[in-house]
Amino acid sequence: MNSLKITTLVAAAAVTMTTFSMSSTAADRVYKLKMAETWTTNFPIFGDAPRNMARIANEMSNGRLKITIDSANKHKAPFGIFDMVRSGQYDIGHSASYYWKGKVANTLYFTTMPFGMTAPEQYGWFYEGDGMKLMEKVYKPFGLLSFPGGNTGMQMGGWFKKEINTVDDLKGLKMRIPGFAGEVLAKLGAKPTNIPPGELYTALERNTIDALEWVGPSLDLRMGFHKIAPYYYTGWHEPATELQFLVNERTWKRLPDDLREILRVSMKLSAYDMYIQSYHESGVNWATMKTDFPNIQVKTFPTPVLKAMKKANDELLAEAAAKDPLTKEILDSQKEYMKTARVWTNISDRAYLESLDSISE
Amino acid sequence: MNSLKITTLVAAAAVTMTTFSMSSTAADRVYKLKMAETWTTNFPIFGDAPRNMARIANEMSNGRLKITIDSANKHKAPFGIFDMVRSGQYDIGHSASYYWKGKVANTLYFTTMPFGMTAPEQYGWFYEGDGMKLMEKVYKPFGLLSFPGGNTGMQMGGWFKKEINTVDDLKGLKMRIPGFAGEVLAKLGAKPTNIPPGELYTALERNTIDALEWVGPSLDLRMGFHKIAPYYYTGWHEPATELQFLVNERTWKRLPDDLREILRVSMKLSAYDMYIQSYHESGVNWATMKTDFPNIQVKTFPTPVLKAMKKANDELLAEAAAKDPLTKEILDSQKEYMKTARVWTNISDRAYLESLDSISE
Repeated sequence: MNSLKITTLVAAAAVTMTTFSMSSTAADRVYKLKMAETWTTNFPIFGDAPRNMARIANEMSNGRLKITIDSANKHKAPFGIFDMVRSGQYDIGHSASYYWKGKVANTLYFTTMPFGMTAPEQYGWFYEGDGMKLMEKVYKPFGLLSFPGGNTGMQMGGWFKKEINTVDDLKGLKMRIPGFAGEVLAKLGAKPTNIPPGELYTALERNTIDALEWVGPSLDLRMGFHKIAPYYYTGWHEPATELQFLVNERTWKRLPDDLREILRVSMKLSAYDMYIQSYHESGVNWATMKTDFPNIQVKTFPTPVLKAMKKANDELLAEAAAKDPLTKEILDSQKEYMKTARVWTNISDRAYLESLDSISE
Repeated sequence: MNSLKITTLVAAAAVTMTTFSMSSTAADRVYKLKMAETWTTNFPIFGDAPRNMARIANEMSNGRLKITIDSANKHKAPFGIFDMVRSGQYDIGHSASYYWKGKVANTLYFTTMPFGMTAPEQYGWFYEGDGMKLMEKVYKPFGLLSFPGGNTGMQMGGWFKKEINTVDDLKGLKMRIPGFAGEVLAKLGAKPTNIPPGELYTALERNTIDALEWVGPSLDLRMGFHKIAPYYYTGWHEPATELQFLVNERTWKRLPDDLREILRVSMKLSAYDMYIQSYHESGVNWATMKTDFPNIQVKTFPTPVLKAMKKANDELLAEAAAKDPLTKEILDSQKEYMKTARVWTNISDRAYLESLDSISE
């Protein structure tokens, strides 16, 4: 005997209205939401997160939550997501918080930080630490809600036309690198800039930039950067890049409770799923890299270069914290959280991986 | 202007029926499902996963999916979940796949494996590799569906009353250790056993066992094991323990499409969330361990002991694969997946963590 109990309500119409007062509203209405993404049409992985989100929201709501997606090809404003969701031109956006640093300085801290937390550490900070609360503090004054939108995992340090052997090699270097890492390189004499994903290859090819970082093996190889910039550096600057779902607060409030929960859950799940997808694609693409693209030269920045980056990073963090109490609150919270979580990361996964070396010879 | 478009359907009753044929069924019925968990009432973290699952399923379905939970205190059969869900006494179970190894040998491989994958690697195998497909092959003949139910992250090697200095110290050792790791220790002369969580402390106190592994700092310290077994070993045997939601296939099929998707998403999300919660609690508890429990002695198994464990592990894997083609298929799939993913784990998170050492002196 199966214990599934189907409680059929007698005199369905009337009783249903009483029992499901929310549902009676919700079931009468289809909520059509418009989402704009920074990415171009059918962009892999990054674009899968909003597509998956829209699909599961639609299925769980039985079609009452219909989310359509406009790609950058259509809205022509890959870095206009913040403004378009704020104004209500779009209900939802899929992008990255650190793209708004020129507009609202504190948005910079909710994507990833150089020398910062790894993905599980940062998810811990968001959901079990103060991350979500602090992000709300930053976005609420603009009538926006921000949610994690998918993690790329550890990003590679980028593609360079010339090797970086000393700190001096960074001077004058024109590099596409967003977020706090761009400021770190600027302090060391480089010329950081941000360029939409769809224009990256051309910019590198035409020497508008000398180097760029994009993501890692999960996405970089299909972009073809290795053909024009063969030095591929390991990561320091984006250990856990979290994309972003931005939601207009008026849209959020107008949704009935069940659809709001469906939207929240769909965003959260598709973000986690993107992390796992990225991890998978990184492994698969790295494995084929050596055979398919033998000219790629994988490099690690020399220790003196990394030390200079770390010093510049720490100085910039101190400056930023001194300027704004909310910045200080965010940075202190991240620092404290990372300190606690990192001890565990080292005793758990790292110690395990290292112990396998000792027994595998 | 906000673009939220509320499409109010005219002549609601009739039109709604047409537009939402599924919804018209679903909205009339409350599906009451019964879930049994291996854990005792209000058990932290492990019990949070099914509780969160039931709560978000209820909220997203606007009360149409009501899942009640019976703890081990009530059903008195912590290791009877498989049978109770199979028979239909319960619709859903929350437990761990490797607990059923005595019943269906191949269930052993869907929790975690000694010297196996880390959590992001294993999630990659489940969702982007062949993990889910292979798990279905194992469970479907029993009218059951199995889903990931929450990851503990890396588990600690356990609590020992006496230090383990040589392989000989394992001989005759009575230890609570489930899964494949138990078989590895048996091959080295130990006497592994499984004991329900609620009885662990007493078993260790009364010398029914000499050692036990439970989880890690997230859950162990509140169990009080350190008071009677002060040696706390780092992990080798359960690098990414994934709990399990078991669903009766008849229940699954009877749910309307939208509620089935709500159930699937609620299980998947609460599993990921438990991984992050475990990571968080591990860090927090590890940080207080040294001050609150100064007598705990953290140890790593000596390399010769680990080597013996690895050798026994590899031999047992080969034996198991030789016995059953499906076992071979599962183990080959895991081995191949781990090989690819591990290269990325090492070049990304591990290399990053190690590079921080070199610049922090």
